[in-house]
Amino acid sequence: MSSSSATIASINEEILSLQNRIKELKVSKQDASAEVNSMKALKEQLKSLTKDQASTGTTSNFVLKTPKGTIDHKPEAALLRKKIFSTLEGIFLKHDASTIDTPVFELKEILAGKYGEDSKLIYDLSDQGGELCSLRYDLTVPFARYVAMNGITSMKRYHIGKVYRRDQPVMTKGRMREFYQCDIDIAGTCDPMVYDSEILKILCEALTALDIGQYTVKINHRKILDGIFQLAGVPADKTRSISSAVDKLDKLPWSDVKKEMTVEKGLDEKVADKIGQYVGLKGPGHDVLEKLKSHSDLMGIPLAKQGIEDMEILFRYLKVYKVLDKMSFDMSLARGLDYYTGIIYEAIHESSAPPSKSTNPSVPPSSEISTKSGSSKPSKSSKSKSDANAVINEDGIDESTIGVGSIAAGGRYDNLVGMFAESAGKKMNEQVPCVGVSVGVERVYSIMEMRRKQTQEKVRGKETEVFVLGLGGIELEKRMEIATLLWDNGIKTSFSPKVNPKPPVQWKQADDDSIPYVLILAPKEYAEGKVRIKAQLGKDQAGAEDNKGEEVELNDVVRYLKEKLGRA
Amino acid sequence: MSSSSATIASINEEILSLQNRIKELKVSKQDASAEVNSMKALKEQLKSLTKDQASTGTTSNFVLKTPKGTIDHKPEAALLRKKIFSTLEGIFLKHDASTIDTPVFELKEILAGKYGEDSKLIYDLSDQGGELCSLRYDLTVPFARYVAMNGITSMKRYHIGKVYRRDQPVMTKGRMREFYQCDIDIAGTCDPMVYDSEILKILCEALTALDIGQYTVKINHRKILDGIFQLAGVPADKTRSISSAVDKLDKLPWSDVKKEMTVEKGLDEKVADKIGQYVGLKGPGHDVLEKLKSHSDLMGIPLAKQGIEDMEILFRYLKVYKVLDKMSFDMSLARGLDYYTGIIYEAIHESSAPPSKSTNPSVPPSSEISTKSGSSKPSKSSKSKSDANAVINEDGIDESTIGVGSIAAGGRYDNLVGMFAESAGKKMNEQVPCVGVSVGVERVYSIMEMRRKQTQEKVRGKETEVFVLGLGGIELEKRMEIATLLWDNGIKTSFSPKVNPKPPVQWKQADDDSIPYVLILAPKEYAEGKVRIKAQLGKDQAGAEDNKGEEVELNDVVRYLKEKLGRA
Repeated sequence: MSSSSATIASINEEILSLQNRIKELKVSKQDASAEVNSMKALKEQLKSLTKDQASTGTTSNFVLKTPKGTIDHKPEAALLRKKIFSTLEGIFLKHDASTIDTPVFELKEILAGKYGEDSKLIYDLSDQGGELCSLRYDLTVPFARYVAMNGITSMKRYHIGKVYRRDQPVMTKGRMREFYQCDIDIAGTCDPMVYDSEILKILCEALTALDIGQYTVKINHRKILDGIFQLAGVPADKTRSISSAVDKLDKLPWSDVKKEMTVEKGLDEKVADKIGQYVGLKGPGHDVLEKLKSHSDLMGIPLAKQGIEDMEILFRYLKVYKVLDKMSFDMSLARGLDYYTGIIYEAIHESSAPPSKSTNPSVPPSSEISTKSGSSKPSKSSKSKSDANAVINEDGIDESTIGVGSIAAGGRYDNLVGMFAESAGKKMNEQVPCVGVSVGVERVYSIMEMRRKQTQEKVRGKETEVFVLGLGGIELEKRMEIATLLWDNGIKTSFSPKVNPKPPVQWKQADDDSIPYVLILAPKEYAEGKVRIKAQLGKDQAGAEDNKGEEVELNDVVRYLKEKLGRA
Repeated sequence: MSSSSATIASINEEILSLQNRIKELKVSKQDASAEVNSMKALKEQLKSLTKDQASTGTTSNFVLKTPKGTIDHKPEAALLRKKIFSTLEGIFLKHDASTIDTPVFELKEILAGKYGEDSKLIYDLSDQGGELCSLRYDLTVPFARYVAMNGITSMKRYHIGKVYRRDQPVMTKGRMREFYQCDIDIAGTCDPMVYDSEILKILCEALTALDIGQYTVKINHRKILDGIFQLAGVPADKTRSISSAVDKLDKLPWSDVKKEMTVEKGLDEKVADKIGQYVGLKGPGHDVLEKLKSHSDLMGIPLAKQGIEDMEILFRYLKVYKVLDKMSFDMSLARGLDYYTGIIYEAIHESSAPPSKSTNPSVPPSSEISTKSGSSKPSKSSKSKSDANAVINEDGIDESTIGVGSIAAGGRYDNLVGMFAESAGKKMNEQVPCVGVSVGVERVYSIMEMRRKQTQEKVRGKETEVFVLGLGGIELEKRMEIATLLWDNGIKTSFSPKVNPKPPVQWKQADDDSIPYVLILAPKEYAEGKVRIKAQLGKDQAGAEDNKGEEVELNDVVRYLKEKLGRA
């Protein structure tokens, strides 16, 4: 296949995907104009490409686009993401964390065998001689590699960076091949649940600071879950696959999950029923703990008992941290990744909903045990479909990293660093236990975008504060001089790049960029050492000649503007 | 070759490279302990690897390292880089710029044909089905692609991000395969030199704000240079290769450059001599302008005349911007990249020096014309060798992007966006002219690192302000409670993760992290609603029992600390 045929095929594929997306948007009565425009542009390019190919056989032309599954973050989006990052960073720094910056690719062997089936999604670099490398798939494995490589025994680190997955991009789900992750992890030994509780405190502070609305943190403990499986009599080799079936309880009714366990995975029906007695349990921490403790058979399983004791300590600390009320102890939470060894958690945002194809969105408490208050909180997660669709946009939510509807997830993983140290032939006297959380920044971004659209708040891609406008006869150098004065005093300033710009063109430039203040230089006033400063309060007022602004002495301009800008 | 043999080969290669580096450092009497430690660790790994290979034939073991030419930025380095970025960002935002964030890889065809010979240094992604992609080589081509793709006619954008070059990493030169670039470019039509002068203003503001010492901006104009070549009679097909010879005048004496022109590149000796009359010219803008204008034959070449007129306007604007004194108009500056069409510039830091193997470091004014004040400024760039070595470290200066000794470089390129639009079959009614600059952040980082080492200033990798320390009998929850109070009031706080930590261990933790304040909870005082707060002023005082700190009421702790931390 020639290069241009490959390009044509790829455009056709994208057009198809856009058509589906547009259909979906129209069905749910949402705005699809951006998608329609993209499609039109692609069709245009396709036309010119096929024409060229027909006339010349082959061509050097190509389509101006980003690779499949990737996007350019435009100024407004880039600025909003920066704000998310700096909010999160502020919280992490408050909690004694430092950051590291690892290469975007790692030796292929570092990533090998860490992601199970998903290893096929790893991007490899081409073999151009030398080492074989792959783009990082997440930030956890590079962190574990860093800790093991440097013989670190204790570290709180955060890392915000892009990760790469050769997933089939699902535009309707916003699943991207390049997307940001934002992780904080604590490596090192602590007394039980000290770091675990701090990670949860950090998570709650972060979600509160992001100001995106209500959320709940579903929490569970791998050891309790494994204890239940032991009690029920799940064969050891089936533990992980049964666990992953349990994890589907947020999307499927118990009857479906039970069918998966018994019919698909060959579990004895009695064993499944025993599991069913427990996994429907959820609610406030202490309520669920009481229920669990009342089951003496479960308390007889050492693994379960240990997990339950951990949770008691954890809830005590979380109460001190004033975040206990955000938690929902949920026995159906199992999390996919194999490497978790202790508590696991997932934060659910109020806007989240189960996937639209699920027949029964809420988790039916089909088991006989259920706490009274238990079902109230997580049911927030089953809002209307349109809500859920609205948070999904082409700017890149990644649902593959975190469960459907979740905005953050994590857990304790005590063996990963040790695995690295061991397979690199290092002898470490002790394991380096870790606990961490990954905030789904792409989803947070989408929620913020959705909220912004609802309030019709105008988002700016720049922060310019003052536009220097010259009326007839004011030369460019005068505007430059004022701009220099403002820049040198830290005021964000712009002006027209023309020597003799017409006033309406200048007003338009100020308006287009929503610049809050216009500093007007008029020949007569300027000769008297004065300028006028006009606040551009709303669109209606912009350019209106009746709002003349305030007259300010030239040598008072900086003080005046700083005061107006709240930086006095 | 098996995977472990490949690994062994790669370790051997690194050991060799480290040995050379250590030899060099020792010769110049610098600290090589970090390098020696790295080498020892590699040798250790090599031993265990070869042992394994001998015993098992092959092995799954691997070396814990980052790929060749890449490094982990550790907390102190990552934090310092973040500060550099935020300083630069602040300047860019002040100048009405917005940022974009493009994918780390582009379609292979986007990069093709943009970098001449250096195209062989482009990293390709493996062909795993679908589009062929490459890691970005710089931030300019993705910007031009973005502008063309979105039909943008006017934009000020900055971009800070990593770029990738499969260069032979030169540890002694700190040339890396992954390194940061930090670019600001203005796309769009302006009256002559308006954006050009603003880019230079931004550059000077940035270098001043970074506070790294004195610098000079060498500046020239492609059109004047081409006019000189025309005047001298350089054949059109030799213009670029003769231009690149001229560019070497900062490293080689005129006699060597002339030899390259005549012997290597077959230029007539008379033609070379005519060039030599001009390219030695340098000094303050207006001085050089006067000299050029006094040559009526040069002024008779329209191209040169246009360039000279541009420079007159430019210097006028730069004077208004108060940065004219930073400029050195240097006729020998030619810059390698083909796509420049107007002014070109390079900022030189006072610490920079020519490569140590050059026999004659300064530019000999071998031509007959030379301004009086001309040679004084750039000669700052020829300091002692050890200075130059000191700024070069393994943390990644990249000299391939910017000339030797330069800390920033750029120019005007009016045709790049048009090339993209055209080859993608788009019809654009007008060109989108651009002018921009790239700040060599890796070199800025190295200069800052060098200065820090000289002042022996301790660099922290975290920003924690208060350590909460409990004396005997104070339970963990009390420390957590105080920490919560501080966190919730924005104070960066840590404490021991142990239930009953011994006081010396706690003091050590506070000292190791250089935390400026220790908040001490003692049972008796705490019962009376009081704590003690101790400023850790210096290492000597840390843990000293005689400095008891100040007693503060519990309900006054937040106010007290905020005042101490300057956030009252």
